[in-house]
Amino acid sequence: MINITLPDGAVKTFDKGVTPMDVAKQISEGFARNVISANFNNTTIETSTPLVKDGSLILYTWNDDDGKKAFWHSSAHILAQALEELYPGIKLWVGPAIENGFYYDVDMGEHTISEKDFKAIEDKMLEIARGKHDFNMRSVSKAEALSYYNGVNNYKVDLIENLEDGTITFCDHSAFTDLCRGGHIPNTSLVKAVKIMSVAGAYWKGDEKNKQLTRVYGISFPKQKELTEYLELLEEAKKRDHRKLGKELELFTFSTKVGQGLPLWLPKGAALRERLENFLKQAQKKAGYEMVVTPHIGQKELYVTSGHYAKYGADSFQPISTPAEGEEFLLKPMNCPHHCEIYNTRPFSYKELPKRYAEFGTVYRYEQSGELHGLTRVRGFTQDDAHIFCTPDQLDAEFKNVIDLVLYVFGSLGFENFKTQVSVRDPENPDKYIGSVENWEKAEQAILNAAIDKGLDYEVVEGEAAFYGPKLDFMVKDALGRNWQLGTIQVDYNLPERFELTYKGSDNELHRPVMIHRAPFGSMERFVAILLEHTGGNFPLWLMPEQVIILSISEKYEKYAEKVLNLLENNEIRALVDNRNETIGKKIREAEMNKIPYMIIVGENEEKDQKITVRQHGGEDLGLLSVEEFTTIVDQQIKKTLKTFKN
Amino acid sequence: MINITLPDGAVKTFDKGVTPMDVAKQISEGFARNVISANFNNTTIETSTPLVKDGSLILYTWNDDDGKKAFWHSSAHILAQALEELYPGIKLWVGPAIENGFYYDVDMGEHTISEKDFKAIEDKMLEIARGKHDFNMRSVSKAEALSYYNGVNNYKVDLIENLEDGTITFCDHSAFTDLCRGGHIPNTSLVKAVKIMSVAGAYWKGDEKNKQLTRVYGISFPKQKELTEYLELLEEAKKRDHRKLGKELELFTFSTKVGQGLPLWLPKGAALRERLENFLKQAQKKAGYEMVVTPHIGQKELYVTSGHYAKYGADSFQPISTPAEGEEFLLKPMNCPHHCEIYNTRPFSYKELPKRYAEFGTVYRYEQSGELHGLTRVRGFTQDDAHIFCTPDQLDAEFKNVIDLVLYVFGSLGFENFKTQVSVRDPENPDKYIGSVENWEKAEQAILNAAIDKGLDYEVVEGEAAFYGPKLDFMVKDALGRNWQLGTIQVDYNLPERFELTYKGSDNELHRPVMIHRAPFGSMERFVAILLEHTGGNFPLWLMPEQVIILSISEKYEKYAEKVLNLLENNEIRALVDNRNETIGKKIREAEMNKIPYMIIVGENEEKDQKITVRQHGGEDLGLLSVEEFTTIVDQQIKKTLKTFKN
Repeated sequence: MINITLPDGAVKTFDKGVTPMDVAKQISEGFARNVISANFNNTTIETSTPLVKDGSLILYTWNDDDGKKAFWHSSAHILAQALEELYPGIKLWVGPAIENGFYYDVDMGEHTISEKDFKAIEDKMLEIARGKHDFNMRSVSKAEALSYYNGVNNYKVDLIENLEDGTITFCDHSAFTDLCRGGHIPNTSLVKAVKIMSVAGAYWKGDEKNKQLTRVYGISFPKQKELTEYLELLEEAKKRDHRKLGKELELFTFSTKVGQGLPLWLPKGAALRERLENFLKQAQKKAGYEMVVTPHIGQKELYVTSGHYAKYGADSFQPISTPAEGEEFLLKPMNCPHHCEIYNTRPFSYKELPKRYAEFGTVYRYEQSGELHGLTRVRGFTQDDAHIFCTPDQLDAEFKNVIDLVLYVFGSLGFENFKTQVSVRDPENPDKYIGSVENWEKAEQAILNAAIDKGLDYEVVEGEAAFYGPKLDFMVKDALGRNWQLGTIQVDYNLPERFELTYKGSDNELHRPVMIHRAPFGSMERFVAILLEHTGGNFPLWLMPEQVIILSISEKYEKYAEKVLNLLENNEIRALVDNRNETIGKKIREAEMNKIPYMIIVGENEEKDQKITVRQHGGEDLGLLSVEEFTTIVDQQIKKTLKTFKN
Repeated sequence: MINITLPDGAVKTFDKGVTPMDVAKQISEGFARNVISANFNNTTIETSTPLVKDGSLILYTWNDDDGKKAFWHSSAHILAQALEELYPGIKLWVGPAIENGFYYDVDMGEHTISEKDFKAIEDKMLEIARGKHDFNMRSVSKAEALSYYNGVNNYKVDLIENLEDGTITFCDHSAFTDLCRGGHIPNTSLVKAVKIMSVAGAYWKGDEKNKQLTRVYGISFPKQKELTEYLELLEEAKKRDHRKLGKELELFTFSTKVGQGLPLWLPKGAALRERLENFLKQAQKKAGYEMVVTPHIGQKELYVTSGHYAKYGADSFQPISTPAEGEEFLLKPMNCPHHCEIYNTRPFSYKELPKRYAEFGTVYRYEQSGELHGLTRVRGFTQDDAHIFCTPDQLDAEFKNVIDLVLYVFGSLGFENFKTQVSVRDPENPDKYIGSVENWEKAEQAILNAAIDKGLDYEVVEGEAAFYGPKLDFMVKDALGRNWQLGTIQVDYNLPERFELTYKGSDNELHRPVMIHRAPFGSMERFVAILLEHTGGNFPLWLMPEQVIILSISEKYEKYAEKVLNLLENNEIRALVDNRNETIGKKIREAEMNKIPYMIIVGENEEKDQKITVRQHGGEDLGLLSVEEFTTIVDQQIKKTLKTFKN
């Protein structure tokens, strides 16, 4: 008999040799039908693997990330078999599960694959899947494994040569065998829907000196409906791609001359960004922050002091030398050292704390060009940064205040669905972190207290803390259900030590303040990108570059259009006039394309009655209104999302 | 007979051998009494030098820079004589006139000079001056000159050895002789007031491997009153030194760790700066500018294209390399290349021009540490930059609009006294400039047209143009009568060529736009420094970090003070409360020190009547007022300087 501990802590006794699927069935037959993968004592195993000792068992379904991984890993086997059957003589390399689906790298020999072949591959895969073949793992000796592939597949031979005898396993399903570490679904028939997404070239082992193999990307699902939804989501995501919208709405651009990963904000984008900054500035002012401005470079020694040079030095932009005097500067990768130096300008008494220094500080970090992506992965970005210097007694309250501010920001921008992650030390790698164990414990506790007090939905993740302190991250779900890390709050006992920051306590002695780093937006670039993809460019009304467009029926009503424009501008409404000699239909279509929330149409009737006809983006007609009635509607609409921050 | 041309263009005939002083007396005896120096055919001469050929003569008085130079150069001779008489055996090196006064470098031998000796030197100088000794120039052969100094003064021997025989002159006055190129006042008696300012060490020939000599600084005037005024001005300038005020008012700081010449803006300074930026943004918005945001670095190639690399490359911060991919970036020395790339994002029709891109863009330029000075000479600064892209036809109007904006800025900030300088090419060095002669002529004419149209007091200076175009600079006189270059407008036909900028004209063909660079403030750093020195920290009311401080007579009136604070904040007045347990006298003194424009005193009477007692910075008592009466006063005071910009 063996004892099996389940995730809820329950310990159950089974006969030695029981399989995870047997355990699942014991829990319930219904549950067992959904179990597709298992983990025993932190190792992925098959649902059919006999358990022969005591241990912890986790059973995964499609709803778990590990379940999806097994599903897609198994699908890669099916893809490989399908490819071998369709293209005889090809040589397989490896085929892992990835974030969305799986791929297989193949030496196609004389064959090629293009989009027109996808359907045949999908059909072949589904045919195999319907066979309801079990995935069976078996151990093989190194000699056996080599002799299986020798002369047939030099790639697998190379792989096996680097493995240790006694650890090698094969997986069989149907007539197909592959070298494999394990982690499969019970049988092929669970795969009900398959889509080949794309093919691409991929160098063997990622080395461009090696032969280029063909990488076939696919995705699979337990239900056809899920595949359909996934493809619709992809289509919608493509429409909302912030790179595409950013260009269409003229928000930002990149220039190969200026350099990749260095965004240039066009007038409408710069205005949008400024509006976001002013919104946060206003709330921060109420919350007792003070703005500072610091340079974008600092002496190398500054970052040696802060520890950032050790962390970023080799991998980031290299030092800037001077034509004389032998000085060395670095583009700042972070604003904190500068703010520490501001704190150090004069002595502080505990009565003057907390000091909250905020800056929209632009920092620069090198990223390889292949990793750059629109505004979400750039080489220069502006953090909505702030550093709070407080006494240990004030830490709890300050942390809670910051959470209030972050929640205010999310609420005003329509992010209603989010979770939080408390990132703490990796207990197995205590050397990765700077600072005393005692201080780390204090800091981690302060974050947990605040998370509980504010009723946050939080998860504690070990090993995800920054090297200088634990943190609370906000994971926001966007309109397409994708998760984004947005907003971060970090406790830091480390920089105050390194910069020898002090304050005079009530005991007249000098003490070290505690620091909090925080950025509700994270970076202006990344935030605008996510907001674009979340809203599809239909920003909250208060943020729209242009809130209203006035369309004149013909040139005859130009003057009246200008009069309406004036009235709106007096009410702080951002409007523009389209007085072109075009049909009203074309003007409306273009205004829809530009996602302008309100269209005002002015012609003979409107001028006669001194009224306006209002149409909303998306088509709803608000009818004939007075300008006053319309401004009231706009004001109310703005107030729905944009509230006043209350501290 | 010879023909002498005077500065007004008049040509007069004189006997050969006439002296400048003779000419002056011919003009008027009164004028001649004021003439202290002369220039003939672009060479400085004595007022007693006989003129023997036709030429142009300028006669200088104390009011001319050249007159002051002769006055102070002559005073250096008197100083040298005084030092020789007081400290026998010393050896003189050189003693030039400088911007304010003169100095003499002396090897003092066994003697030393300290502040307590200044009075004796001044007295000796005045004693010599009263002797009314003429300054007499005479030519000497190199042999004569060497024999005069040989064995007596090795420094002068060294100097003479590097001179060409036939060009060497001595100047005698009283019993004193010095090696001298000339340019003196008629006689010593014109020097009526003398002040020794300081002594300092100075290496012979500025080389630290040489012996250190003693540099004695002095200044002299034709009237005692002028010396007194100068010393008062110095005293006032010291009080207004922006480095001192910046520290006292907690506006900005420097950190040796961050790096010299890299200002850190403290909260009050950052708020002041933001207020200035918002003020300009508002006016710029009305004037049709659009804000953009660009990175602080760009690929080296970008600046090779723009020509800035050729201009700044070697002398500025060196290129930033990347850890992979072999890219090279530069800290941007100017924003214009980035704005050109923004313009190049899409095609423009002539109907869409002008495009006016504005950015508070921080740029970095290396300066040697010895040249750094507070905020006026830094290594990183934020330009209130904008680039206007227009058609050649629009250039005149745009230039005039920019002048309107600059005048609005100056008016709102209390700079009422200014001149302008039109900087055009140096006709003798046409190779210094990039761009065609035709384009340069067009651009220079556009500036002159605008200057005349706007009724500016302007001076055309040849050779002062930037390498890429002519410009109009504003020279502002501050409250202490010092001149500052503030605000610059430049026409540029060059960058549009280099970046191949185009627009489609009404002829459907592509044309090059013209560019205007402009910065009314120049840089935020330098502007704030000058504003500090101009106002002594008493900024215009609309700009003050704190406009009002509420002083409670005792802690009993804390609540009422907070109530008043609330009422003021509701009226957008920046106020704070001093509720400390200190005497009202001390609170007033500190508020005066902090230059807060209005002090509100609240105590028993004030609370009872729900009124406030108001006192102005500097002492004027406004008596008992209602909060409404007070806010009206503040509003009116603000409107005196801060008008609305009208385009």
